[in-house]
Amino acid sequence: MTGKTWAYEDFVEGASHDLGTKNVSAAEIIEFASEFDAQPMHLDEAAGKASILGGLSASGWHTCAMFMRMLCDALLLDSTSQGSPGIDHVKWKKPVLAGDTLCGTVTVLAKRQSKSRPQLGLVSMRSELFNQRGESVFELENTGMFLARDAAKDPS
Amino acid sequence: MTGKTWAYEDFVEGASHDLGTKNVSAAEIIEFASEFDAQPMHLDEAAGKASILGGLSASGWHTCAMFMRMLCDALLLDSTSQGSPGIDHVKWKKPVLAGDTLCGTVTVLAKRQSKSRPQLGLVSMRSELFNQRGESVFELENTGMFLARDAAKDPS
Repeated sequence: MTGKTWAYEDFVEGASHDLGTKNVSAAEIIEFASEFDAQPMHLDEAAGKASILGGLSASGWHTCAMFMRMLCDALLLDSTSQGSPGIDHVKWKKPVLAGDTLCGTVTVLAKRQSKSRPQLGLVSMRSELFNQRGESVFELENTGMFLARDAAKDPS
Repeated sequence: MTGKTWAYEDFVEGASHDLGTKNVSAAEIIEFASEFDAQPMHLDEAAGKASILGGLSASGWHTCAMFMRMLCDALLLDSTSQGSPGIDHVKWKKPVLAGDTLCGTVTVLAKRQSKSRPQLGLVSMRSELFNQRGESVFELENTGMFLARDAAKDPS
């Protein structure tokens, strides 16, 4: 892990990072929903239009998973991440519809060393995704655990 | 939707419902992680053992998705569900490891009619998943939106 760009020390409170973009296809909405959330509005355009969501819309959990992929590609896979104890909140603010393109940012809210494991740091983050109309569709706050750079060094 | 068992009126504050069981295979852990959360501890047994998670462990988002499937099968697909505005919190309390069997319950915390859409009701729920050793691994609170039975009747 020595070569990773992001160790605990590298996160700066208040800094924002770009999450790139993600196109959302009808096929992947239906694939995810078929496995995990087979409600009609996530499986079928007509059922989506008849629902309060107004069209074939991604499961909220699919939006979470797509967000996680964006965060992985933007930052997490090049970090000393050790996972997360949980999610403070998620807001599904508007439907994510087939054909939408998502973009977003993650902002570091606060950081502190773990008391029980001093080689580990906790980083609180707030993330937000927008669609191609600039509408905020998703908001999340969570805490990630990251090794300090020294602790991440391979033994030699 | 007339034939659905669960409309807004049918949820009772304090009532708990069984979520069935779910076996978690290494293959599905790796498949989900490869698409959405390709951190080493979710892709590889040795990397999982070397991490603080102690083995090949499901992405927390995968646990959320598996929970959602359990909730769909137990209740949601036979309901007037209209989706959810978000998640109040998620706690990933212990790793979900390859070979684990999950079970759990969902409990109705509170319910109220929507002010802006009186045909819709909001149901707050607390869910918990346990592994085969009886350890609590996952906790979630969220709010679901359900049509009232009359509003769910097909026009005739």
